[in-house]
Amino acid sequence: MLNPNVSVDCVVFGFDLINLNVLLIDRNFTKEGIVYVDLKLPGDLIQMNEDMDDSVRRILTEKMGLSNVYLKQFMSFGSPGRIKRKERDLEWLRQIDYPDEHIITIAYYSLIDISEQGSAKLIMGDNVRCCPVHEITDLVMDHMDILKSALEHLRIDILNQPIAFELLPEKFTLSQLQKLYEVLLGKTFDKRNFRKKFANMKYLIPLNEKQVGVAHGPARLHIFSHDLYIKTMNDNLANC
Amino acid sequence: MLNPNVSVDCVVFGFDLINLNVLLIDRNFTKEGIVYVDLKLPGDLIQMNEDMDDSVRRILTEKMGLSNVYLKQFMSFGSPGRIKRKERDLEWLRQIDYPDEHIITIAYYSLIDISEQGSAKLIMGDNVRCCPVHEITDLVMDHMDILKSALEHLRIDILNQPIAFELLPEKFTLSQLQKLYEVLLGKTFDKRNFRKKFANMKYLIPLNEKQVGVAHGPARLHIFSHDLYIKTMNDNLANC
Repeated sequence: MLNPNVSVDCVVFGFDLINLNVLLIDRNFTKEGIVYVDLKLPGDLIQMNEDMDDSVRRILTEKMGLSNVYLKQFMSFGSPGRIKRKERDLEWLRQIDYPDEHIITIAYYSLIDISEQGSAKLIMGDNVRCCPVHEITDLVMDHMDILKSALEHLRIDILNQPIAFELLPEKFTLSQLQKLYEVLLGKTFDKRNFRKKFANMKYLIPLNEKQVGVAHGPARLHIFSHDLYIKTMNDNLANC
Repeated sequence: MLNPNVSVDCVVFGFDLINLNVLLIDRNFTKEGIVYVDLKLPGDLIQMNEDMDDSVRRILTEKMGLSNVYLKQFMSFGSPGRIKRKERDLEWLRQIDYPDEHIITIAYYSLIDISEQGSAKLIMGDNVRCCPVHEITDLVMDHMDILKSALEHLRIDILNQPIAFELLPEKFTLSQLQKLYEVLLGKTFDKRNFRKKFANMKYLIPLNEKQVGVAHGPARLHIFSHDLYIKTMNDNLANC
């Protein structure tokens, strides 16, 4: 049985080493000969007595074939009228089970690697779109607000938590890491300063391995060590 | 009409210049001759089509006489069984309207000044308790989890946002500010280093005014300028 008053929605961010993207779902339907074409975040009403984290995981698997992804609950949205912003939303609501309920949505963001290496693991349905964030200008209901809020949270979180690595291949170059920060924070960094800063992070381990398939000047690969990260944080705390 | 599936709860933190406290409400009731004595966070089911921020403001006013306080939504809690943890909770649920619903609660924290100066403005009911955080060991349902999570969020937020000042009198000494950080973060700071750090913050304005009513060595008072804070942040961003 569905909970008519509570949904979850998830902003799935994917980095392809060039752009920050969001995975969206078609919400297309036809009514009285009119075709309504829209994009939405993956989400749905939760089931009664279902934990919200479990709901999101279930929905990401069902709608996008995703599993074991990084998930963060960042905000709830419950303004009255949030799902009835546009005529298209009203048309869509007239064909579902609970058109008049006040639905509060618990919003999450998820981070995935959609570089060539990461994408190979994805099995996504035909109705899933991967769109660069800067090209997304319109979504159903209040999903643009949810996307903007997710981006604001991600920009703060990435400076405070070791989550950038969720968006990168397991082995990455420092240029790729810098590109990710630049794209996400919307500014450019001096290459030398950026490297100096990250050279101090002992949990970023350089490998005796270089990029393959690069025409010239293949760069050294690095991995992120979660264990060393925890150790570093504990050491820092002890030295305060 | 109440929304049977969605509530809000608020952790109201108050600093009295010595301890970090939380304002709690008695949930006492008698059933079949047994008196159940418990403490809870202020909260309630939201009304249908009521914005959640408005719900919290309404509840804090109704239950605690608080208005115009700093509010931050930090997390939602929705585990099945979260409100049925203890026998006392079950007894309590048997006497309300929706005993069997799956209730998701949107949790907020609020920050108030309960120093002598701040308390003068509070009008609180008889059933409100002000308890030092470290003395709170048991609350109704999952309210201890909510309190712990609020504290974790506050500890991160206070290092990243200018919210410490919500917990202090309008005019405060640097010792009072240091004490707040020490109590909240659970560690002591070297006085000179602490002052050096805060001396760089241009939005912390020293006044030509000292504490009154202090036996000896009254300290200089400071105020926080929100306008200068915004200006400093913008300048920092421009210089990156």
